[in-house]
Amino acid sequence: MNDPDRIWTAALVVIGDEILSGRTHDKNIAQIATWLDVQGIRLREVRVVPDLEDAIIGAVDSLRAGHDYLFTTGGIGPTHDDITVDAVARALGVAVVIHPEARAFLEDYYSTRGGLTEARLRMARVPDGASLIPNYMSGAPGIRFGNIYMMAGVPYITAGMLDGLTGTLEGGKPLIAETIGCWIPESEVADLLRETEQTHAGCQIGSYPFFREGKVGANFVVRSTDRAAVNDCVAKLLEGLHALGRETTLGGI
Amino acid sequence: MNDPDRIWTAALVVIGDEILSGRTHDKNIAQIATWLDVQGIRLREVRVVPDLEDAIIGAVDSLRAGHDYLFTTGGIGPTHDDITVDAVARALGVAVVIHPEARAFLEDYYSTRGGLTEARLRMARVPDGASLIPNYMSGAPGIRFGNIYMMAGVPYITAGMLDGLTGTLEGGKPLIAETIGCWIPESEVADLLRETEQTHAGCQIGSYPFFREGKVGANFVVRSTDRAAVNDCVAKLLEGLHALGRETTLGGI
Repeated sequence: MNDPDRIWTAALVVIGDEILSGRTHDKNIAQIATWLDVQGIRLREVRVVPDLEDAIIGAVDSLRAGHDYLFTTGGIGPTHDDITVDAVARALGVAVVIHPEARAFLEDYYSTRGGLTEARLRMARVPDGASLIPNYMSGAPGIRFGNIYMMAGVPYITAGMLDGLTGTLEGGKPLIAETIGCWIPESEVADLLRETEQTHAGCQIGSYPFFREGKVGANFVVRSTDRAAVNDCVAKLLEGLHALGRETTLGGI
Repeated sequence: MNDPDRIWTAALVVIGDEILSGRTHDKNIAQIATWLDVQGIRLREVRVVPDLEDAIIGAVDSLRAGHDYLFTTGGIGPTHDDITVDAVARALGVAVVIHPEARAFLEDYYSTRGGLTEARLRMARVPDGASLIPNYMSGAPGIRFGNIYMMAGVPYITAGMLDGLTGTLEGGKPLIAETIGCWIPESEVADLLRETEQTHAGCQIGSYPFFREGKVGANFVVRSTDRAAVNDCVAKLLEGLHALGRETTLGGI
């Protein structure tokens, strides 16, 4: 029988010079993190690397073995800077082949859009042995090889591919998170937070300060896979904050 | 004499469970990338890691030697989940000490804010031998040790610290980037892009597709440290796009 408390983890490699140059604000980290959370899978590490084969290979090699799942975003389009498939195939030691289903799909998709050119056929290239991830948004599919999921870089296309994968990846208990917002400097509750975390095994408390409307506050996020433990921990934190004479907002400020 | 063509590089470690859980959308990657670009320094790799000492140490250890600069964001506040200083000190093999200037600064800052408690004094802790990075926004300074720059996680505080560092880091020639926008599927210009890049040594061309107003287009970004090379490459791309009967928008769409 499988261990119901097993923690399933994932890593993500974001591939793209445009993120590292600051030109494009990444949206895929948060999007994939949120989606994984619902699947009961924790995103444990992200690496952002440039469009360079060695950099992609290095990241894939060091992350694919240590996690249940490895996602990549970016570099699976038709242009010369789209080298994710080649890099992953090299990391895996397999050839790059044209996937017949992807080819058929692209032929159909481009039949009314000028035909399947050589450049477009690049989007049917996969590491030998890979399967496809449906793309409901545009022509080119995502690619799965073992525990590696190669997704588009454009966030709305990635979103469509994630939709296609929903419910297909095995995960564990989802992480439950409850947030308490409070207008208090986090430095005034550091002891309370530390002591509360120490006396609630299995709960992590995160403290996220902010400065708004001319005053400081913080959101305190309690996380655990155990609902009762989260509730106990939240109750204790609320008690402590009220003892300091502060009002609190469940759900965060 | 220094090599005027030397490329200066940086890596960034983003520390925080809140990014990996999807709760918080990271803003520091783009902010630091853009700032580094102005300093003539290229951001080459980013790793996002959780608030776990071993994960931070692993990332710092593998990145600090391969780059001119290593930045970290997050985990330098007063609460129990702020463990960046401890992790970096362990990675460097040095002790954690109270920095006298940071202590004096915090004493002054908190003299009208309830006093310097033990939790607040945590923000004066640094790896032994470190210097401080001014923080114009709130009490706690950033920390520099050798080529490692430990910055706040809250983006507006990070921004203030970057301001304080502006002009103090040696860099090389800035990367020049010009963008051409065009309403064309990128798969129709894949050959043009590849051939143009191949005949313009030192230039990289990135292709960033989008789907708006019910039609597809792409921005093509030409990057090089050589202004003349960028101009030549842009001229060639414009010529090619116009030959395909397309209109172009300099600066991107």
